[in-house]
Amino acid sequence: MQDPTHYPARMTGSNSGTASYRRLDVTRRRAQLIRAALGLFAHRPPEDVSLDDVAVAAEVSRPLVYRYFPGGKTQLYEAALGSAAAELTECFAVPQEGPLTVRLAAALDRYLAFVDEHDAGFSALLRSGSVVATSRTGAIVDGVRRSAAGHILTHLRVPEPGVRLRMAVRTWITAVEGASLTWLDEGKQPAVEELRDWLVDHFVALLLATAARDGQTARVAAAALALEPAEGAVASLARRTVELLTEAEHLLPSP
Amino acid sequence: MQDPTHYPARMTGSNSGTASYRRLDVTRRRAQLIRAALGLFAHRPPEDVSLDDVAVAAEVSRPLVYRYFPGGKTQLYEAALGSAAAELTECFAVPQEGPLTVRLAAALDRYLAFVDEHDAGFSALLRSGSVVATSRTGAIVDGVRRSAAGHILTHLRVPEPGVRLRMAVRTWITAVEGASLTWLDEGKQPAVEELRDWLVDHFVALLLATAARDGQTARVAAAALALEPAEGAVASLARRTVELLTEAEHLLPSP
Repeated sequence: MQDPTHYPARMTGSNSGTASYRRLDVTRRRAQLIRAALGLFAHRPPEDVSLDDVAVAAEVSRPLVYRYFPGGKTQLYEAALGSAAAELTECFAVPQEGPLTVRLAAALDRYLAFVDEHDAGFSALLRSGSVVATSRTGAIVDGVRRSAAGHILTHLRVPEPGVRLRMAVRTWITAVEGASLTWLDEGKQPAVEELRDWLVDHFVALLLATAARDGQTARVAAAALALEPAEGAVASLARRTVELLTEAEHLLPSP
Repeated sequence: MQDPTHYPARMTGSNSGTASYRRLDVTRRRAQLIRAALGLFAHRPPEDVSLDDVAVAAEVSRPLVYRYFPGGKTQLYEAALGSAAAELTECFAVPQEGPLTVRLAAALDRYLAFVDEHDAGFSALLRSGSVVATSRTGAIVDGVRRSAAGHILTHLRVPEPGVRLRMAVRTWITAVEGASLTWLDEGKQPAVEELRDWLVDHFVALLLATAARDGQTARVAAAALALEPAEGAVASLARRTVELLTEAEHLLPSP
């Protein structure tokens, strides 16, 4: 025998259940329209997407799209962006275990898959002077950046980051965004795995450069380096960098 | 005896000279209005600047401002931005001699002085979802970025940069912009000289990280390192970085 309370209200036969069923239906319908819109905004500049297109893509009538989004395309675009932002925010929520570079690579894999999948929409939104950017979309994008910075500082186990460490993390996030746009401009060259590894190297290089002038960052970097494997990304970067520096004989003291 | 053709037309007594004088006057007046506007846009968000304010600041009548900028505030703002862009574009035009880090520091000194002087205007324009950003202002800003990247590649003596080196340079420029915005958010902390030195270190770190996976960048980096002094920024960064890496004993092979 199954306990009906274990089922969503829509599965029960009660009157309140019917109301819940309708509410659930509204939520689902809304999500369906947002999904359809996001699919269109991902591959065309927003000015080339009409509510008609969304209705066709979602296989519903145009009035229905307007009923759900009476504010028209702007409201639908912001809703689609909000949904995309929620997905992007999740990218950096990777488990707090293992070497930092492995965690960053996992986060970047998700982030870059999103960029790849939503290329035109990503460009259109973040291009300077974008026609679709408003103070509201700007706030959504900034929310994603802040959340990503928060996640990274949590991975670094820094509850009270100083200005230099905060600036390093925020600057790297800007750099990831800029590199993603350049990558799209360059016809998605080099391969996404190389871009990911290069962005991880960039993080390590920036963390070490910042550590060279800031005690807090130096402690954080030392703790992070201790977790890196002897044959991992950091070891490889370190060896190749020291080789380059050693070739310019005058820069490093002889061992 | 002086040849009058060596003088601007306004210095000659001819009739056409009078017309030229008037044209020069128009150019000067326009420049005066743009200067006044730039001073206002630098410290207030553009929505808080009226043409009246510009007339007061330039000590001219409001109709005169309209006569020069019939397109109103948008036209004036774009003209002011164009003038600012020309100034920013000059930042990276430093002499092609001496160590690369010294040249970069000189360019950044000019760039950061501009950011410091035009703080509110710089933020308002580059903030995502900025109310003042249009496709036209976007094109002006992108022009500055492209020009800065071109200057840096010229300093690196790379006539045909590959995708990885192009991406490194463009990413660093994005990072400089992002760091400048963060620096303004942080109430201009740390001191501007420290920010400059950190951005130079960031460039070196990113160049070396890119060199680790790209032959062209490795050759460019080696040539740049050869010009760096034994007691300069790169030597200091290299020593401190190797110290940090050596503390994590497993990452670098024993000497």
